[in-house]
Amino acid sequence: MAGSTLGIIYRITTWGESHGAGLGVIVDGCPAGLPLSANDIQLYLDRRKPGQSRIATPRREADEVEILSGIFEGKTTGTPISLLVRNTSQHSGDYTEIAECYRPGHADYTFDQKYGFRDYRGGGRSSGRETIGRVAAGAIAAKVLKEFGITLCAYTKSIGPISIHPDSFDPAAILETPTAMPDRDASAQAEKFLADCMSNYDSAGGVIECVADGVPAGLGDPVFEKLDANLAKAVMSIGAVKAVEIGDGIEVSMHHGSTNNDPFRLEGKQIVKSSNHAGGILGGISDGSQIILRAHVKPTPSIFSPQDTVNREGKETQISIKGRHDPVIVPRAVVVVESMTAITLLDALLVNAGAKMEHLKAIYKS
Amino acid sequence: MAGSTLGIIYRITTWGESHGAGLGVIVDGCPAGLPLSANDIQLYLDRRKPGQSRIATPRREADEVEILSGIFEGKTTGTPISLLVRNTSQHSGDYTEIAECYRPGHADYTFDQKYGFRDYRGGGRSSGRETIGRVAAGAIAAKVLKEFGITLCAYTKSIGPISIHPDSFDPAAILETPTAMPDRDASAQAEKFLADCMSNYDSAGGVIECVADGVPAGLGDPVFEKLDANLAKAVMSIGAVKAVEIGDGIEVSMHHGSTNNDPFRLEGKQIVKSSNHAGGILGGISDGSQIILRAHVKPTPSIFSPQDTVNREGKETQISIKGRHDPVIVPRAVVVVESMTAITLLDALLVNAGAKMEHLKAIYKS
Amino acid sequence: MAGSTLGIIYRITTWGESHGAGLGVIVDGCPAGLPLSANDIQLYLDRRKPGQSRIATPRREADEVEILSGIFEGKTTGTPISLLVRNTSQHSGDYTEIAECYRPGHADYTFDQKYGFRDYRGGGRSSGRETIGRVAAGAIAAKVLKEFGITLCAYTKSIGPISIHPDSFDPAAILETPTAMPDRDASAQAEKFLADCMSNYDSAGGVIECVADGVPAGLGDPVFEKLDANLAKAVMSIGAVKAVEIGDGIEVSMHHGSTNNDPFRLEGKQIVKSSNHAGGILGGISDGSQIILRAHVKPTPSIFSPQDTVNREGKETQISIKGRHDPVIVPRAVVVVESMTAITLLDALLVNAGAKMEHLKAIYKS
Amino acid sequence: MAGSTLGIIYRITTWGESHGAGLGVIVDGCPAGLPLSANDIQLYLDRRKPGQSRIATPRREADEVEILSGIFEGKTTGTPISLLVRNTSQHSGDYTEIAECYRPGHADYTFDQKYGFRDYRGGGRSSGRETIGRVAAGAIAAKVLKEFGITLCAYTKSIGPISIHPDSFDPAAILETPTAMPDRDASAQAEKFLADCMSNYDSAGGVIECVADGVPAGLGDPVFEKLDANLAKAVMSIGAVKAVEIGDGIEVSMHHGSTNNDPFRLEGKQIVKSSNHAGGILGGISDGSQIILRAHVKPTPSIFSPQDTVNREGKETQISIKGRHDPVIVPRAVVVVESMTAITLLDALLVNAGAKMEHLKAIYKS
Repeated sequence: MAGSTLGIIYRITTWGESHGAGLGVIVDGCPAGLPLSANDIQLYLDRRKPGQSRIATPRREADEVEILSGIFEGKTTGTPISLLVRNTSQHSGDYTEIAECYRPGHADYTFDQKYGFRDYRGGGRSSGRETIGRVAAGAIAAKVLKEFGITLCAYTKSIGPISIHPDSFDPAAILETPTAMPDRDASAQAEKFLADCMSNYDSAGGVIECVADGVPAGLGDPVFEKLDANLAKAVMSIGAVKAVEIGDGIEVSMHHGSTNNDPFRLEGKQIVKSSNHAGGILGGISDGSQIILRAHVKPTPSIFSPQDTVNREGKETQISIKGRHDPVIVPRAVVVVESMTAITLLDALLVNAGAKMEHLKAIYKS
Repeated sequence: MAGSTLGIIYRITTWGESHGAGLGVIVDGCPAGLPLSANDIQLYLDRRKPGQSRIATPRREADEVEILSGIFEGKTTGTPISLLVRNTSQHSGDYTEIAECYRPGHADYTFDQKYGFRDYRGGGRSSGRETIGRVAAGAIAAKVLKEFGITLCAYTKSIGPISIHPDSFDPAAILETPTAMPDRDASAQAEKFLADCMSNYDSAGGVIECVADGVPAGLGDPVFEKLDANLAKAVMSIGAVKAVEIGDGIEVSMHHGSTNNDPFRLEGKQIVKSSNHAGGILGGISDGSQIILRAHVKPTPSIFSPQDTVNREGKETQISIKGRHDPVIVPRAVVVVESMTAITLLDALLVNAGAKMEHLKAIYKS
Repeated sequence: MAGSTLGIIYRITTWGESHGAGLGVIVDGCPAGLPLSANDIQLYLDRRKPGQSRIATPRREADEVEILSGIFEGKTTGTPISLLVRNTSQHSGDYTEIAECYRPGHADYTFDQKYGFRDYRGGGRSSGRETIGRVAAGAIAAKVLKEFGITLCAYTKSIGPISIHPDSFDPAAILETPTAMPDRDASAQAEKFLADCMSNYDSAGGVIECVADGVPAGLGDPVFEKLDANLAKAVMSIGAVKAVEIGDGIEVSMHHGSTNNDPFRLEGKQIVKSSNHAGGILGGISDGSQIILRAHVKPTPSIFSPQDTVNREGKETQISIKGRHDPVIVPRAVVVVESMTAITLLDALLVNAGAKMEHLKAIYKS
Repeated sequence: MAGSTLGIIYRITTWGESHGAGLGVIVDGCPAGLPLSANDIQLYLDRRKPGQSRIATPRREADEVEILSGIFEGKTTGTPISLLVRNTSQHSGDYTEIAECYRPGHADYTFDQKYGFRDYRGGGRSSGRETIGRVAAGAIAAKVLKEFGITLCAYTKSIGPISIHPDSFDPAAILETPTAMPDRDASAQAEKFLADCMSNYDSAGGVIECVADGVPAGLGDPVFEKLDANLAKAVMSIGAVKAVEIGDGIEVSMHHGSTNNDPFRLEGKQIVKSSNHAGGILGGISDGSQIILRAHVKPTPSIFSPQDTVNREGKETQISIKGRHDPVIVPRAVVVVESMTAITLLDALLVNAGAKMEHLKAIYKS
């Protein structure tokens, strides 16, 4: 079924399996005239690569992106941008057991139920490598947004029980710690915690937070295409995400109206809010304050402990997963959350261009 | 902008403002041959009406649905079903202050920013009455799903700090308590809690849970149209929802792989899971077990206490909201969550019909 | 199935059957701030009403439109505009024979094959009354386009063998002749021709031409969403249209490159074309000259002569259609072609708003 | 803008320019379980390659397709099929004059108007090479359709004034003649006619006809997604097509109801039509008889005679196009028309799977 396309005007279509020839994305609807190079995209892709530290898988993935179309003389032409990353270091030999057994926590069983069979090598289409296309498209979206003063920042908020501390927030640490935490102390603790998980043949989950600054008021639509609804879809569509929060999120259920409403006030002539429990969205439309969201990520389902399962022949059995698996998905998923947020915001920005006669008159002087 | 349509094959388009002539929905893509009467829909609409108790607004809303098209001789014809609910008891006189001031927690400011002006009467398009179309479309979706053995049940899980107790779960109480809680004791406590909120001129939030039984394995797509992604969008698109969880939701970030994975086992010849932390979805595709989701709902933003705000002329001021407002949105939103879940599941069921050659051969014998 | 919605940003959803409660349309995505009244729409609807002359059916259809939503203080709010036309003068009693037999040239058989049964009263969803929603949505689109200097004009070019003569072109005649021909002489001849058809219990076809002036260069997309491709779909989706031409249309197959290419030249500083064989579209994108298209309309399939057919029980039989039927569809379809053209052009205008960085910067000053 | 995607369930997204790294297509929504090899696709691509004869350009285009994803163990997996054709024999040096001048009949001017600049090498995105993606996707669609007994056949019906003769119809000739005409005599005459065009530094147009056999009744939707409307869009979206006809097409305007209606009769127990003026579609829905359409193709706009035009600096000038250009587009476009027809029919087949409860019950036994 055709579920590989997302967006109305900024529309991305991803393809590829972990052990096929490669993976990629078509970015259609990028406005013409944006300076863009492979390097802009590579910087984002490198953020989802496994690191050198103990907590990341030691396999080497070059993941070098090739731009196949849509750029001319260093600028986007408005036509589809096709991006390709060849698979290079995949070992199909590792995956014979998976062909037979349904791994708990994975999509093996559901793929078989849906399609009758599946590409079992490395998770196939449901592999984490599927996010390569998302991140490449996100890099371009983020570059367009930056031209309008919109910037994004995502980071690991917690891994298992270890959370960052607001007072120690250090943005530089996001790219420098193996956990993508903006708090070096918390990161060190999280590394220790993950080392324990690994020695127990186990894995851990965590929380990713993403904030967007500079988003103008007015993006998003009032009913089904609410900005928060589309962010929820975009982020929940990342494998392993099991909950999405906007602003205060789950805490709102314990608030009162008097503590949850954000009063308006003036800052010079600008209308602003005195607080931001809403996470920058009111009635599905951006309100000009910071957009804030959180994704809750489940533990890596691939663990080395033996697990009960059933095989394709319908017999009960046990599986002990081998190979190279990160004990936590969170650090590498940070840039994926940031990318999905960028993609969603850019599409809302483009779609909003026709919202009022005034906008259109700025383009088409009648 | 065009954000009033949802779904690929089962496609709904809602329209209407709280104080216009009425509200409604076009349901396009309902399979032909389903027996359907206005009463099937009215039963759902009645569940979102304000009750008689202290916790619901005393205004009377008849909300009687008229079927304008798409039914012939008591059955759906496959053509669009147009449903209309006339507005009857609206008092436009109450809303003059809102025309001037931006109510905190409402969409007044964002509508003005997006569209340049707004229908300020009763919230206009961002009123809670907008859900009438969703519930009407949900009633039809639920009826189709029932033909395939799929049933849904949504209820209030908590209001402020008061939660239902699993041991006291009584489904009959959902329709009988004013809180829509399936636990009469918790409901009584929640009513007391809400009475206190009201006497403080304040409001409260809560949590709605929805479970779907009988969903076959294989619904949903592996990438952007994941079943959980579409559920997240559908539920987050309900006004006042600030977080959506699937299965164990936010708790997964504290789990380990060994405790979060659901082992497979056999029940006779049927492959089942020994637990359901995943909430019935693996890799974006239903796994045949119960689908479970939760929506976190913010407190009613309309409170009687004075709040700081700014008016359209750009002056700081205070607003004390008058009129009739429920102290909690949750009980009336239960059927909306159930409806959005039904709509999403049915669309996934229809879209999945072309997933494999085997399906198609069952329809079009070659 | 869900085929009642058209458009990306200016998105219309029609509903209704000829003998149900009514028909209507939801217009979603109309820019906010357009002055709009029911009268603007009624003027268009009145153009598709049957006239008083010999060539139009004598039945009276009031077809009064009610605006149910989306307008506040005389202007569009940006939220969906719901329009309703109640059916008033339908006589269900006339249609018993149709319930049994498949009328040649009608959709009776194909509806039964697709949906298993059908609303047989007056053609149900495939009735010509289905165009009410299109025309109502077209009236709004035309009003938006006018604000940008874009105007449309459709007319009958020929009925059977009688064509208008370019030298006698009189735009006023379009609304004044019963044939919608802009040539009073040709119209008189066509009336005579149609009177002959009627006396032979037969019907006739014809050609509708539509031109759009003032369309800026740059609308439409290079590949699947070519402006001509979308015009072709929009116009071919009108019942009874069997061919669509753009510019010189079918004649291009007999041309040479040297006679078919339109040379560019200057008019002051403006680049214009010396001819317009292309009908205003090059590579799927408007070129700033007049857009020209033609629709070829089949004869009314309902004729009074006896015709061979088969009934639902699978027996061969004859049918002689009774009731009130225009001998030609063309004059009433003129405004439908104009409406579909307007809808398509407006959607292209809105979608194009995000085509280049320069446009976006005019809206969102970075 | 995002216009590179077509289809609802069988959804194709093309990308690439004539002188970029390559061109390709993502085919999303192909049902799982179809045997598919690169050779299946190559056979179609080879049909759009220039031939060896006088009437085709002498340049060699290998156009070898690589399958990058979506196939496992020789069968489609249901996930996106990414197809890549590298550009190999492009000479960018030939295109310096085009960078400066607007070629009449080409999209140079409109691209500049839309996007502000363009990839001028070989037409960029509006090159005929853009059809590579369409043909590759069409090959797959045709293979699926064949499993349901649906076959397609497209051919050249006329080139300039030379038409095939019904009595000489020889299907084998389609692949064997350089004109793709199913009539060897007509083909020989057309070759002579084209040789004359070439000696006059000129080009010619023509007509392509496509017929589909075995299409079951019931495909297509009654309103905007009529099967003929979607065929018209798909075919008109091919560059150079200026008119599309269904069945008797433009001739219907000269018919009477009595001669244009197709009577129903029985063939054994099967309901069939005694004639097929409608081209297999009634009310937008297939009627079980042969689907017939025609595309009218303009003369190649690239001609060697000097033409008046304007350059980017806004000065009037003349252009004499150099390089290798076919004197007629028609023979190479035949497989493109066949492909777009296949893509549209398959999408209609998949979308129709959810049209009635009966279909769904065949898949999901309740």
